[in-house]
Amino acid sequence: MALDSKIRVAIVGSTGYGGVELIRLLQGHPRVDITSVISTSSAGVPISKGFPHLTNIINQDLDGLDIQSIAQKADVVFTATPSGISTPLVPQLLQAGLKVIDLSGDFRIKDGATYEHWYKHPAADPRYVEQAVYGLSEVFGEEVLGKDFISNPGCFPTATLLGLVPAIIAGWIDPSSIIIDAKSGVSGSGRGTSLTVHYAEINENLRAYKVNRHQHIPEIEQVLSELTGEKVTVTFTTHLTPMTRGIMSTMYAKVIGEHSQADFVDLYRQYYEGRPFVRVRDTGEWPATKEVTGSNFCDMGLLVDDRTGRITIISVIDNIVKGASGQAIQNLNLMMGWEEDLGLGYTPVYP
Amino acid sequence: MALDSKIRVAIVGSTGYGGVELIRLLQGHPRVDITSVISTSSAGVPISKGFPHLTNIINQDLDGLDIQSIAQKADVVFTATPSGISTPLVPQLLQAGLKVIDLSGDFRIKDGATYEHWYKHPAADPRYVEQAVYGLSEVFGEEVLGKDFISNPGCFPTATLLGLVPAIIAGWIDPSSIIIDAKSGVSGSGRGTSLTVHYAEINENLRAYKVNRHQHIPEIEQVLSELTGEKVTVTFTTHLTPMTRGIMSTMYAKVIGEHSQADFVDLYRQYYEGRPFVRVRDTGEWPATKEVTGSNFCDMGLLVDDRTGRITIISVIDNIVKGASGQAIQNLNLMMGWEEDLGLGYTPVYP
Amino acid sequence: MALDSKIRVAIVGSTGYGGVELIRLLQGHPRVDITSVISTSSAGVPISKGFPHLTNIINQDLDGLDIQSIAQKADVVFTATPSGISTPLVPQLLQAGLKVIDLSGDFRIKDGATYEHWYKHPAADPRYVEQAVYGLSEVFGEEVLGKDFISNPGCFPTATLLGLVPAIIAGWIDPSSIIIDAKSGVSGSGRGTSLTVHYAEINENLRAYKVNRHQHIPEIEQVLSELTGEKVTVTFTTHLTPMTRGIMSTMYAKVIGEHSQADFVDLYRQYYEGRPFVRVRDTGEWPATKEVTGSNFCDMGLLVDDRTGRITIISVIDNIVKGASGQAIQNLNLMMGWEEDLGLGYTPVYP
Amino acid sequence: MALDSKIRVAIVGSTGYGGVELIRLLQGHPRVDITSVISTSSAGVPISKGFPHLTNIINQDLDGLDIQSIAQKADVVFTATPSGISTPLVPQLLQAGLKVIDLSGDFRIKDGATYEHWYKHPAADPRYVEQAVYGLSEVFGEEVLGKDFISNPGCFPTATLLGLVPAIIAGWIDPSSIIIDAKSGVSGSGRGTSLTVHYAEINENLRAYKVNRHQHIPEIEQVLSELTGEKVTVTFTTHLTPMTRGIMSTMYAKVIGEHSQADFVDLYRQYYEGRPFVRVRDTGEWPATKEVTGSNFCDMGLLVDDRTGRITIISVIDNIVKGASGQAIQNLNLMMGWEEDLGLGYTPVYP
Repeated sequence: MALDSKIRVAIVGSTGYGGVELIRLLQGHPRVDITSVISTSSAGVPISKGFPHLTNIINQDLDGLDIQSIAQKADVVFTATPSGISTPLVPQLLQAGLKVIDLSGDFRIKDGATYEHWYKHPAADPRYVEQAVYGLSEVFGEEVLGKDFISNPGCFPTATLLGLVPAIIAGWIDPSSIIIDAKSGVSGSGRGTSLTVHYAEINENLRAYKVNRHQHIPEIEQVLSELTGEKVTVTFTTHLTPMTRGIMSTMYAKVIGEHSQADFVDLYRQYYEGRPFVRVRDTGEWPATKEVTGSNFCDMGLLVDDRTGRITIISVIDNIVKGASGQAIQNLNLMMGWEEDLGLGYTPVYP
Repeated sequence: MALDSKIRVAIVGSTGYGGVELIRLLQGHPRVDITSVISTSSAGVPISKGFPHLTNIINQDLDGLDIQSIAQKADVVFTATPSGISTPLVPQLLQAGLKVIDLSGDFRIKDGATYEHWYKHPAADPRYVEQAVYGLSEVFGEEVLGKDFISNPGCFPTATLLGLVPAIIAGWIDPSSIIIDAKSGVSGSGRGTSLTVHYAEINENLRAYKVNRHQHIPEIEQVLSELTGEKVTVTFTTHLTPMTRGIMSTMYAKVIGEHSQADFVDLYRQYYEGRPFVRVRDTGEWPATKEVTGSNFCDMGLLVDDRTGRITIISVIDNIVKGASGQAIQNLNLMMGWEEDLGLGYTPVYP
Repeated sequence: MALDSKIRVAIVGSTGYGGVELIRLLQGHPRVDITSVISTSSAGVPISKGFPHLTNIINQDLDGLDIQSIAQKADVVFTATPSGISTPLVPQLLQAGLKVIDLSGDFRIKDGATYEHWYKHPAADPRYVEQAVYGLSEVFGEEVLGKDFISNPGCFPTATLLGLVPAIIAGWIDPSSIIIDAKSGVSGSGRGTSLTVHYAEINENLRAYKVNRHQHIPEIEQVLSELTGEKVTVTFTTHLTPMTRGIMSTMYAKVIGEHSQADFVDLYRQYYEGRPFVRVRDTGEWPATKEVTGSNFCDMGLLVDDRTGRITIISVIDNIVKGASGQAIQNLNLMMGWEEDLGLGYTPVYP
Repeated sequence: MALDSKIRVAIVGSTGYGGVELIRLLQGHPRVDITSVISTSSAGVPISKGFPHLTNIINQDLDGLDIQSIAQKADVVFTATPSGISTPLVPQLLQAGLKVIDLSGDFRIKDGATYEHWYKHPAADPRYVEQAVYGLSEVFGEEVLGKDFISNPGCFPTATLLGLVPAIIAGWIDPSSIIIDAKSGVSGSGRGTSLTVHYAEINENLRAYKVNRHQHIPEIEQVLSELTGEKVTVTFTTHLTPMTRGIMSTMYAKVIGEHSQADFVDLYRQYYEGRPFVRVRDTGEWPATKEVTGSNFCDMGLLVDDRTGRITIISVIDNIVKGASGQAIQNLNLMMGWEEDLGLGYTPVYP
């Protein structure tokens, strides 16, 4: 493959966990050159200063945030920025002719009022929200091809929606009955310091947070509503667990109609057939978060309970890979018309 | 208080986590003398050999299991034995005139067939099952006074039932809608070795197990059915989390009637008024497992969600204390007519 | 015991880990009433607001820092304050007629220049430094009786000195050969937030810090120099380990003269005879940090290696108990002429 | 590159942590095909049954151990077997014409009596011990080229020797003064179950083990003795730390002659110039184990202390990668005359 067939990539927010994971994953991507790593707070400093694990791997200095400079250096920009930052930034990048894959939540919620209710700050320009393709790869991947602007899904919605969508589309579960009990590792909170992520406070500890208030709720409901054609509301609880990486979403719903355990397993396997990153376990086996650590996999298991008429669905992802940077690269691949798993063939790191 | 006013206690299963915790907690109990620590596997060895943390604290050798010897040495026996061992043992202890507090599950399930379905081995003699008082202290504590034989609740049922009972008794939640998503630390699996509890396999990992199959399900359903007068079935999932101690039970149910968030908080606080070990948090605050570690507390929080008409209830306990040995001592206190919290005034170890 | 025989205690720095541990431990002390919990940052707020584990255990509001108010409310003050705060504060408390047990490092180093070299800020008034009794209980406990002002040792010096002193006093190890490799849990860094204590940064990680630069070095050297009558310098490395509580000090030194393994074990057991909190293990057994968690014990093991002529000594403590608040209470007991272990009979929390 | 230019590899011991890591790493190696994964205990079962993280990645069934079958299927064999198994196995593999890279300790110790003293079972046939090239890549890599039989170094010796060799060869440290304080994650103990690796026993805990008795001591001493031409004995302590992966070796030695901090840094950087996997940190910076997790790097830092005349050297590796499977692949590369880092370009997984 000729060198000139590579695309040039810039990463805004390179000193967050999402940004640094983009660097790790893109190092092994055969058609990408990272030409600029950008951090508004640490411009001019070698990125390996704050992240010594990158020593001798990426020797660039961090760039400041300058639209024109990015436009000269890159073809595609990943914006791994906190919510609220992408709102004004992404339009500028698009106007400068760049393709953008945005990892923030700023362009995921189509309805501005809903966004503002959950995110507590102003919504982005609706023209750009409209333009953004919601990049849940296994569900909406076909819409990503050839587009310029992808809004990358949140970590909880990724694990949750991949676990619900086949049954929802088939009409086999009651949308009004959905309860989602989600658990996340601490890296999901980002690299900012706070008492919540103080080791002594969360080690050997388990706590719920943002019960019924998490900003990923409207994202899940928007997709489920779109797929069912009715307004879906869900009960959603997030828990912080003493581990660094990993999300598990445990989901409960009422089964509609006569569908056996085997029917459901078949339904899910057919839905995800040919998709390299979803692995549906055999009946009686349940995925553990460590079985996907460092990889782009989403593993899932499910069980129909005849005693209660409910199904329990469990899906796991690495929150920084499939829940953020890995799926963003998957979206890059889909956008460019490359193989979906190009450069993403990481075996989970186990143990 | 005169020395002769103390009772003499024996502990069967002293080399398991439940047994060794009984020793820790009873060391500080003003009316108890531990006169025999019993282990069938390690008789004759000082207990501090296998548990060096007990050096200079309890210097006894482990005794073998001999009913007559126990009857001479002790007034009350705690049987912290695996399921199946207590079935034949407890009747012998009772016949020898001992009072028994049994920490196994062998005498909790009133219906023999149900026991055998979930536990996969023969049920105990129904006369003894009948005699056993189910010692969920805050709910059935009044029945414990003066009795000779207490069946101590399981760890998951303790956390779960304390979280559900006030609403169930009030008729404010729909019993058919109950979903319980439980999480436990690894010590709940006991001290036996297996791949499941291998550090490298469960550290930085989260896994579900025994989904809809956990033997604590019939215990929860039995109590809820008894309190409601109707047959209740629940959806119950257990997760193994990378921490040593702690259980969190996250519960979901449909609210019946017009009851506000404030109503529910009042209901719970009234129900637990005067009970020293249940702490109901203010609205918006959620308990974390570490906030009860090492203590006999059960902390809980709850939230009514008007969007979905559901209530989310979260309760936490230390699985080895309130979920096992602490509640067993609480039952001893109630049985003897002592203050409920005598010798149990441990402040949680935080952080 | 009559209520009026209790002393009244105030705690300055009640919202740090040292302060909150003083509260936990003093709850069970039969001759202490906590009459004021003080925090300059959170005055007026119930202490259980920031530490929900204390709900229903201590219901006081935090007091501001007012010397006259403390003098009215308390007989003894524990100052669990960061280094630099005690320097001006303690003299005022002493002048107000209070007894003081200071947990900061501000009064431990007798030589002002040495203090300023290692601590990087001005030394305390030398008259007060002179007055302070260094409260390493098992070594200098006799000097504490009846005194008004105790400087409580640092966590690393406690573990290290208890491991070295018997051999140093006996002249059995070469003071110039001492190398100390110390490991600490994260709570030793305090409750302040920083990237260093971010869960995702230190979980599943091990890092050295302040190599040869730790401010506890001069404290260790001062005691060893005093006991040997010569200037001792040590090599001392600290490591941050992924656990909340615990310090292990692994020490190496050249053996002087012909002393066998059995000789050393005897020497240590004789030195610590009658001291309730030091436990010297049998040859071939080594203490683990968890075996002292939550308790005031210092456990140690040692091994003479004939191949190299060196001895390896390992001691462990709970950094917040014997390394801070527990030893401070031990010093209170010694100061008041009470039993050394009064109110400190905590069995380690295991597992 | 043509497909026929690939070599065929078999892995004996595929269900241990070393074996499964060989699979992870070799998946990405451009010149290797894994043609047989072998386990004596689980032959006939898909490897993904016991290791679900490998689902859809490697779909082979485990083979039994049959020398002729291996000889037909493979060119090179990795033996990731426990000590004692390789002793009889490796000669048979070599006689069958296979190249062997042995990850056990059975062929590392040149002197049979020394082996038997430390390993407690019979030494291997001295002709094969003699033939084995000790594959510490950065030190003896030149000897590996073209050889048929490599004995892969132990995890502790790798971290330790890479940290000591430049100074030892230069004669800048006193070999008789070396003290090594090593710390390891739990995966170093392998996948076998025992109380030592029970999560509840080692989580939130730190323990020393095999003090002065670890079988890696003679391996370290053999290399240091060979390089210095004198008999070197070292003091070596191992600690088990609550993390899954990672080794840190903290080393202490007396500096000989007048060599500054800058001199040492230069010495180390020159020694490792051109070697892709060793990274020597700037003065004042220290490596943490997480900064190499999942990668083949060995990072190190060092500090000369003028107060004591000693140098402290700290090196870190991922025990399963550079300490086992990664270095084994590095040896494969060197043996075959390929680039040293072919297929090993893994960026550490951080956080």
